[in-house]
Amino acid sequence: MFKKLLIANRGEIAVRIIRAARELGISTVAVYSEADKDALHTNLADEAVCIGPARSTESYLNMNAVLSAAIVTGAQAIHPGFGFLSENSKFATMCEELNIKFIGPAGSVMDKMGDKINARAEMIKAKVPVIPGSDGEVYTAEEALEVAERLGYPVMLKASAGGGGKGIRKVKSQEELAPAFESASQEALAAFGNGAMYIEKVIYPARHIEVQILGDSFGHIVHLGERDCSLQRNNQKVLEESPSIAIGSTLRQKMGDAAVRAAQAVSYENAGTIEFLLDEESGNFYFMEMNTRVQVEHPVTEFVTGVDIVREQIRIAAGQELSVSQEDIQFTGHAIECRINAENPKFNFAPCPGKITDLYLPSGGVGLRVDSAVYNGYTIPPYYDSMIAKVIVHGENRFDALMKMQRALYELEIEGVVTNTEFQLDLISDKNVIAGDYDTSFLMETFLPAYQKTEE
Amino acid sequence: MFKKLLIANRGEIAVRIIRAARELGISTVAVYSEADKDALHTNLADEAVCIGPARSTESYLNMNAVLSAAIVTGAQAIHPGFGFLSENSKFATMCEELNIKFIGPAGSVMDKMGDKINARAEMIKAKVPVIPGSDGEVYTAEEALEVAERLGYPVMLKASAGGGGKGIRKVKSQEELAPAFESASQEALAAFGNGAMYIEKVIYPARHIEVQILGDSFGHIVHLGERDCSLQRNNQKVLEESPSIAIGSTLRQKMGDAAVRAAQAVSYENAGTIEFLLDEESGNFYFMEMNTRVQVEHPVTEFVTGVDIVREQIRIAAGQELSVSQEDIQFTGHAIECRINAENPKFNFAPCPGKITDLYLPSGGVGLRVDSAVYNGYTIPPYYDSMIAKVIVHGENRFDALMKMQRALYELEIEGVVTNTEFQLDLISDKNVIAGDYDTSFLMETFLPAYQKTEE
Repeated sequence: MFKKLLIANRGEIAVRIIRAARELGISTVAVYSEADKDALHTNLADEAVCIGPARSTESYLNMNAVLSAAIVTGAQAIHPGFGFLSENSKFATMCEELNIKFIGPAGSVMDKMGDKINARAEMIKAKVPVIPGSDGEVYTAEEALEVAERLGYPVMLKASAGGGGKGIRKVKSQEELAPAFESASQEALAAFGNGAMYIEKVIYPARHIEVQILGDSFGHIVHLGERDCSLQRNNQKVLEESPSIAIGSTLRQKMGDAAVRAAQAVSYENAGTIEFLLDEESGNFYFMEMNTRVQVEHPVTEFVTGVDIVREQIRIAAGQELSVSQEDIQFTGHAIECRINAENPKFNFAPCPGKITDLYLPSGGVGLRVDSAVYNGYTIPPYYDSMIAKVIVHGENRFDALMKMQRALYELEIEGVVTNTEFQLDLISDKNVIAGDYDTSFLMETFLPAYQKTEE
Repeated sequence: MFKKLLIANRGEIAVRIIRAARELGISTVAVYSEADKDALHTNLADEAVCIGPARSTESYLNMNAVLSAAIVTGAQAIHPGFGFLSENSKFATMCEELNIKFIGPAGSVMDKMGDKINARAEMIKAKVPVIPGSDGEVYTAEEALEVAERLGYPVMLKASAGGGGKGIRKVKSQEELAPAFESASQEALAAFGNGAMYIEKVIYPARHIEVQILGDSFGHIVHLGERDCSLQRNNQKVLEESPSIAIGSTLRQKMGDAAVRAAQAVSYENAGTIEFLLDEESGNFYFMEMNTRVQVEHPVTEFVTGVDIVREQIRIAAGQELSVSQEDIQFTGHAIECRINAENPKFNFAPCPGKITDLYLPSGGVGLRVDSAVYNGYTIPPYYDSMIAKVIVHGENRFDALMKMQRALYELEIEGVVTNTEFQLDLISDKNVIAGDYDTSFLMETFLPAYQKTEE
């Protein structure tokens, strides 16, 4: 096992990894930007190295600074968390070259799956169903038009190198196509340095169902069941749950098998997620993309399976076998995660950084967990993601989980900054959400308009 | 199910019960003393009724005040927690008479098991092994001497109506007997209004092993495995764990069966605990007493079994069947609880009430739970128990649980009052504790002298 681990991230996921490492007896190195010198991850780690100014491009995305910190402190491994450098194959490869273990798949595997068009081709080979779409990258609006006519509207334009909701446009008709293509392509160029797009038919209505997988260096690959992440705002997940109410045991098995096949196709090692779109009526599902890292919503899977995913990541990277076989994995109860963001739902969800003047995080009882990097008196900096806590519950069944979430959010108190806690409470009190009757468009097209009307 | 539940307690157990009730959709009534108007349980409940001055005899032990609060608010049930009125059969009977459901066994059953001499006789009938001892109550030092000679020294003098470590004396020789008897009997008279004693042979070395049982009104009784609570200071538990490292599966089965037999003997309903002393060398175990209420350390059992004991208590009282059969109950991993007290280990564990000026409770990750009633800025009143939080962890195995406890206690920060957090960290770092090699005398006779020496 590693003696020392560097965490190339910040916020709750950095804290989550520090905790997992400490529980394994591994000493930890935090890296932090100048804006994060009082951050929890900075304080909690055994060592902390400042890697630059507040802007992520100059600190958390600065590969040389991160690697220097690892070398200086003698860290044997780097956990990238999610976001930042976690899906950067160049960084993974640089780690390899420096003989520092990158906790994730090899850079070459990341490249295969990170490029959405490559990934699509791999999936077709592995007999994993994909969304009808363009055969490769599309560079001009004219080409795009041709493809869209063939697929039929609506279609989705997606940045080939994309992620995090950037460079994505839904196009409903021929007229909208050209301007949408230009703006998405430019956004992609700005965000990822690559303006290439691809086009997919819109699967609608659809649920976002993703399958967690784990693979070790001995070629064992297991899936840990699915997460339903259909409740999204601007393609950002808001609430996630496991299992999905939309799928029965036969479909669960099929999707799990497909996810394992997908991972096997690229000899996947470490934790990853296969994202599918599910057409609930037909039961058809389509590969969307693979995330080659731990997900924000991994705790719901940890609750229903009892498997500590971050711990498994570290063990796998250290050359250990998976601690569970597919047969060992039992699914118990129902888990839900609500993301708590410092944002104002009544002001178009504008981020609300600032000082937390009083804090009470819910705790205690059976089946509750809060992953967070905030503390009383902490000042949330304006430079990063607005997510400040994840409240996760585990109930006997879905209704019980909703009741537990309600009690947890009712207890949660964050003074000094505006958060979406009340919004989440309203969301889990919605009759469609209670019934589990929602698709990926529900939050934006049904819930939010009604919510905003009430607010007026 | 009940619509409204009154919680006749304070502190973390009151909060625990409020949370359990809320998760079942039951509205809650807190009762509070004048010293507890800013307490978490007072604020968290849907309603709160002041029942008198700070002194518990005038508030939390004032049966009429508690019952009036229940009547005024229309509560259909009362959960007594532990301590205070939880093992008061008169109170349970008064509830029955007022048609308010007391969440616990019937007063008559409490009487049977609460009187230690009666309980002993019941256990002998049920073929549950008991500690060799006096046949009934002993009223004079002369009688005591006779019994002690027969049993052989050392012997234990115990208040017949006792509990909470009061009226207990260990006597090592003939000379010590008479004075010890007088002082214990007087202490018992003062504490319980009853000076009667009984005498038992001292089982030494011994481990304190207790078995959690649950019984419903349909006559189903199950056990949820054991807890090892051998780490005690002045007969007060300090750290508890499940399973016990001292017993294998055969002995576990035997003790579980004996506990179920004990509960069956009195047609036990609701949650209860059978406490045994185990002679580790011979594998013989002896009934000590039954606690007819939820225990402080119930969370360790909840972690290893997944059964929510407080929820089961409420369901049972509402006339529902147990949610699990003995065959359903699976034991997973290892759980440990450390009690965090506002006390000064370097000053003979003197209670340290006062204002909490800064607070960070550990959270997040897999297998951690903190049950507490403190919050940032809370002032711990001097009138009640000094326990302010319970840190409970659940690991893959005992070593993992110890690692998790270490990371949790390392994170815990309570400023403004002195606590035993460092002491608990030292305790779980002790080589005997790590090896699981301890009996009920270990903390007082081995660990503490060495600890105090280091401190000097």
